[in-house]
Amino acid sequence: MSRNFRELLEGKWNEGKFLCVGLDSELEKIPESAQKGSNRETLVAFNRAIIDATKDLVCAYKPNSAFYEAHGDEGFSALRETAQYILEHAPDVPIILDAKRADIGNTNNGYVDAIFGHLQMDAVTVQPYLGSEALKPFLEQKDKGIIVLCRTSNEGAGELQDLLIEGEPLYKKVAHLVAEKWNTNGNCAVVVGATYPEEMTYLRTLMPHCIFLIPGYGSQGGTAADVKRGFLPDGTGAIVNASRSIIFASKGKDWLEAAKKAAEDMAKEL
Amino acid sequence: MSRNFRELLEGKWNEGKFLCVGLDSELEKIPESAQKGSNRETLVAFNRAIIDATKDLVCAYKPNSAFYEAHGDEGFSALRETAQYILEHAPDVPIILDAKRADIGNTNNGYVDAIFGHLQMDAVTVQPYLGSEALKPFLEQKDKGIIVLCRTSNEGAGELQDLLIEGEPLYKKVAHLVAEKWNTNGNCAVVVGATYPEEMTYLRTLMPHCIFLIPGYGSQGGTAADVKRGFLPDGTGAIVNASRSIIFASKGKDWLEAAKKAAEDMAKEL
Repeated sequence: MSRNFRELLEGKWNEGKFLCVGLDSELEKIPESAQKGSNRETLVAFNRAIIDATKDLVCAYKPNSAFYEAHGDEGFSALRETAQYILEHAPDVPIILDAKRADIGNTNNGYVDAIFGHLQMDAVTVQPYLGSEALKPFLEQKDKGIIVLCRTSNEGAGELQDLLIEGEPLYKKVAHLVAEKWNTNGNCAVVVGATYPEEMTYLRTLMPHCIFLIPGYGSQGGTAADVKRGFLPDGTGAIVNASRSIIFASKGKDWLEAAKKAAEDMAKEL
Repeated sequence: MSRNFRELLEGKWNEGKFLCVGLDSELEKIPESAQKGSNRETLVAFNRAIIDATKDLVCAYKPNSAFYEAHGDEGFSALRETAQYILEHAPDVPIILDAKRADIGNTNNGYVDAIFGHLQMDAVTVQPYLGSEALKPFLEQKDKGIIVLCRTSNEGAGELQDLLIEGEPLYKKVAHLVAEKWNTNGNCAVVVGATYPEEMTYLRTLMPHCIFLIPGYGSQGGTAADVKRGFLPDGTGAIVNASRSIIFASKGKDWLEAAKKAAEDMAKEL
């Protein structure tokens, strides 16, 4: 059965679920009691436990590729096995690979094969700097979610993103481009950090149909009131991500209960 | 022995070498006569042959991560084994991973571990959109080359990069930021496409000390006269990359001789 990112997501929104758990499974932070034999086994076992504990609470999972690539081919295998586990045990939950990729034209085909073929992801985050002509191999994937970095959640996001172009900051220009030009297949979304609530309000007005992936909720300081600004009037349209504040909620033996509790609290708050 | 990207590169420049061979080893394009058992074996054997044939002609090698990631953990292994082969058989040639990475703060540590630890690369290409605060884990790697995308070689590069900020296009603003602010450790370089010769002339004036990585020579249409604009008055300062026009110079049984011939011709031209 073919999967469609937006349909899977709307299914979860209809169940009132808006929380995305970021599987930023940094090996060094995985509690001792969850360590297994190899790095690959530890990463996969940890993720499986988190998935089992949270799959009824979430609208999506979002592993960040960096934490897996750090362990080379073993990490790459762990990422693939994690996606496979979600496909088998939570098949109605879409999987977003946070990879922040972008290369020129044909080279992106390699990333498309890796991310949607080999790793079986439903969506990916991409960088806008090379333009839509470069991103074509991604944008052509009609059933996948292509999530463009617009306003990132980091403290120094404004260094480039706030540069003024005819009086308008670059991130708003990116939002315009995505909404008016790049989204011809209806598969684009944008990243808007919860740490920039005013920018989020503006962007929501500008993009009344676009899905917002909202990082920065939880550990990075974004509140439920902040992220509310990213929702549509009908109460949908947003994927609110929390990573460390859920998966590493406790370092002790209660890590799994703590993770589940943190996810429940956040899901309730949204 | 610790390796330093700039020192390795200067060693090669002193030998009059400015050509970088892009190991964009797209599996489907590897000639039949070079195919081996597994994908990993084919990729590694092909790269080893190309390296043996060109190592006395080049100032650097530049594998593009996408072509390896397309084959999952096997591809990741092939990438690591390729770097290992260069370290053993051409230890004075620096290796640039064309990965066009960038994430926020700590997450980049995962990429740093992957690229400089696990894969043993000497340099990496990075995206500027998230700003220097986000790139800090890269910029702190004093012995490594951190090569910031400035003016990319693709046809649609201008969609964002030509947007005017106080009368100056974004790519020039990025160049200013790199030269004046991001390069405190002297380890930054910039990507400037050979396909934009006028922009290259301007950027060279603006950045009299910065290393230019120049893609777009060969297949993409950049000429030797175009790339000359990226060199410093002393005849150094540039890494001129060609990929397909060398490694896939012939599809026939003469693929290796053709690759060597193409590299020799280009090296002579520079």
